[in-house]
Amino acid sequence: MTLTELKQFMDTHKKEIDVRMPDYIETMKGPQTLKEAMTYSIQAGGKRVRPLLMLAAVSAFRSVEEQDYQAACSVEMVHTYSLIHDDLPAMDDDDYRRGMLTNHKVYGEAFAVLAGDGLLSKAFEMISTLTHISNDRKVRMVMELAQSSGLEGMTGGQASDLEGENKTLELKDLEYIHDHKTGALLTYAVTAGALLGDAPEEDIKKLKQFSRELGLVFQIKDDILDIEGDENEMGKAPGSDEGRNKSTYPSLLTMSGAKEKLVFHAEKAKSFLPGSSSYTSLLKDFVDYVAERAH
Amino acid sequence: MTLTELKQFMDTHKKEIDVRMPDYIETMKGPQTLKEAMTYSIQAGGKRVRPLLMLAAVSAFRSVEEQDYQAACSVEMVHTYSLIHDDLPAMDDDDYRRGMLTNHKVYGEAFAVLAGDGLLSKAFEMISTLTHISNDRKVRMVMELAQSSGLEGMTGGQASDLEGENKTLELKDLEYIHDHKTGALLTYAVTAGALLGDAPEEDIKKLKQFSRELGLVFQIKDDILDIEGDENEMGKAPGSDEGRNKSTYPSLLTMSGAKEKLVFHAEKAKSFLPGSSSYTSLLKDFVDYVAERAH
Repeated sequence: MTLTELKQFMDTHKKEIDVRMPDYIETMKGPQTLKEAMTYSIQAGGKRVRPLLMLAAVSAFRSVEEQDYQAACSVEMVHTYSLIHDDLPAMDDDDYRRGMLTNHKVYGEAFAVLAGDGLLSKAFEMISTLTHISNDRKVRMVMELAQSSGLEGMTGGQASDLEGENKTLELKDLEYIHDHKTGALLTYAVTAGALLGDAPEEDIKKLKQFSRELGLVFQIKDDILDIEGDENEMGKAPGSDEGRNKSTYPSLLTMSGAKEKLVFHAEKAKSFLPGSSSYTSLLKDFVDYVAERAH
Repeated sequence: MTLTELKQFMDTHKKEIDVRMPDYIETMKGPQTLKEAMTYSIQAGGKRVRPLLMLAAVSAFRSVEEQDYQAACSVEMVHTYSLIHDDLPAMDDDDYRRGMLTNHKVYGEAFAVLAGDGLLSKAFEMISTLTHISNDRKVRMVMELAQSSGLEGMTGGQASDLEGENKTLELKDLEYIHDHKTGALLTYAVTAGALLGDAPEEDIKKLKQFSRELGLVFQIKDDILDIEGDENEMGKAPGSDEGRNKSTYPSLLTMSGAKEKLVFHAEKAKSFLPGSSSYTSLLKDFVDYVAERAH
């Protein structure tokens, strides 16, 4: 497979995801302003990397089915919730994300907290109401998502990230942060895809190792783009991490060191891909996509 | 059964719950400060009404087992998460709860948001890792909890509550708020107890109707206590709702009207209890306990 074929896969499925995302909230009963706040952020664009990664993992084992979109959109709900909370004044205090006002700038802090809360609960509901996989697999997905999103995963990573501001971190601390803040949910996306596809346990194990490396590629690339990226494509000003005195891969390793590390983890990720069937090349191409993206 | 027997049931099981609550967090790996923030609030006292209600519902169908505590503590994690977020400056802006500083007063707003987030994820993990019930029942519990805690339940109720401040609400608006903000999670607690006890669907349906009424009893009593309660027993100053211009049952119905309504819903709750076996009298006594408590 080539990056063109991956791009086609992503374009096709991204459209389906973008169409469905607001529907999951629209059909719910609840206070109108809170529904709007939740919908605002899930419609605020984004590359949909996590759901697409989940579908790429599914298609390693079988073709994508309608119900897979519900599982895939579910991880995007969790990602969106984390962005809303991370942007809050008490956290990263961001006014813009992807070129749009952040949730609390539009709906106020209270509703931003609640919109995030509502999206996290919704994600678990969406897993529990899948109809195309066994309850055993659903329970496993709930467990994996809960662990990836909580203290031992993303939430813990965000806490460490906040504690690390204005400190010069060692490389291992930086990796801990990214492994949890970004890596855990990417790993969940791939693991869930494998669970949806009824993958053997051995493959799931290898795909988790794959995901960990992919997560590092993702974050190193983010740090590089923060310095070298184009403001229009990024939706935020380059250098914003530097301005907040955050340790980054380029600041710890120099830019060329960071780029070497990017290639190292990209290759390592690919080495964990099980088997040699056509699907693995879709995930393999995903690594290159993440490493070479421009925003 | 008598209120004394219920009290004994509650005292016994409350001890077990209080001992176990911090253990679920202690055994997790994550940033120390965030663990402390989560532990602070789950150890900050409280009557443990929701887990005890769940165990009372379990004991309607069989005796309480060790693993039931995990399910019971799980709903208390969700309750605690909601208190931490509700206390935030952007929400109810409370400095004290149960006579102790609120989470954000001790750990700051960012960690309070994250502590709440971590507790919600943890709750779903605790259901997914139960070993004494079928995966079918666990999936159902996840679905019920997600619906009770999210936009269609507690989070939606909190949003409506915030929107209702400084407005004179009609009784139906006040009931909508309480049905969702407080009632939904109480209903989940009873429903989950019935699911743990492998109750027939018909009983679950009746117990949900029971819970809705119990939720109203709970809230009407809260409003009455806010005016008539003893500050030492309550852990907060009486009249604090009034001070924030919140509509309450006594403000809409007068105090004697509110007390009549309390009795009405207490009787209605009891009328939904299925069968006449000994267990139902434990839940029946729970209604009286809620209606007659002093704090």
